[in-house]
Amino acid sequence: MTLDPRLDLQLDRFVDVPRRLVWEAWTTPEHLKHWFVPKPWTITDCEIDLRPGGVFRSVMRSPEGQEFPNLGCYLEVVPEERLVWTDALLPGYRPSEKPFFTAFLLLDEENGGTRYRAIALHRDEAGRKQHEEMGFEEGWGTVVTQLVEYIKSSMV
Amino acid sequence: MTLDPRLDLQLDRFVDVPRRLVWEAWTTPEHLKHWFVPKPWTITDCEIDLRPGGVFRSVMRSPEGQEFPNLGCYLEVVPEERLVWTDALLPGYRPSEKPFFTAFLLLDEENGGTRYRAIALHRDEAGRKQHEEMGFEEGWGTVVTQLVEYIKSSMV
Repeated sequence: MTLDPRLDLQLDRFVDVPRRLVWEAWTTPEHLKHWFVPKPWTITDCEIDLRPGGVFRSVMRSPEGQEFPNLGCYLEVVPEERLVWTDALLPGYRPSEKPFFTAFLLLDEENGGTRYRAIALHRDEAGRKQHEEMGFEEGWGTVVTQLVEYIKSSMV
Repeated sequence: MTLDPRLDLQLDRFVDVPRRLVWEAWTTPEHLKHWFVPKPWTITDCEIDLRPGGVFRSVMRSPEGQEFPNLGCYLEVVPEERLVWTDALLPGYRPSEKPFFTAFLLLDEENGGTRYRAIALHRDEAGRKQHEEMGFEEGWGTVVTQLVEYIKSSMV
């Protein structure tokens, strides 16, 4: 997959946990809640209908108690390999009011662990910059670390 | 599929041509150019990459010679049954600048012909009304008539 550095952001990591468990943690609400936002933020609700057109919804809660809902739609679901979703469409593919990005999670088996790539496509440079300033690199990085810790402590 | 009458538009027709040819006419640029806009408008260019994430691009030309490009992305491709695309995403799923609608073409075999449903989902009532005022009902209806004439004269 070819990225456009003006518009796209990518996190590329090797993680020493099995690809199967990474996939499961990303696609099961009960797992996802434990690692999906940098602590002490929490996920208070999550809904997943794992098929193209299906809902991917989560609610993030700040330490002060403010809630931020995220609503998106899955586009591609290739088990253990490729998950694509966007907030440019609501579930069922209706165009949304506030499109911001499309995300790809790409997983490959590597040396007994997993090559983990998370990619965000934005519609313009302003969107990419905004996402950078929101802390894409650090936030998504922290979340991968939490994901690995969660898998090791609770899923193996 | 459940529609929302405030947001969605639908054209539902029986056409006395085989479903296979309707599908072929919708998914082959050389066929599509002949019927896709109400005459005397014409299609001067068309590009189709028939897979989820693939491009669906056409250029409409008015009788006065003004050109109007349309750029969209396929979401679902189920041969002869179901074609879904949107202009809320560019090919490769990047969010677009000016999302307007997501379209479904749903085909069923019926009495030796085809039940033909074309559905447009809009993000708000303003979008639905704008599409109505642009002539959805008459325009999409005229286009089905042209499609059937084209199939009978050139594809059977």
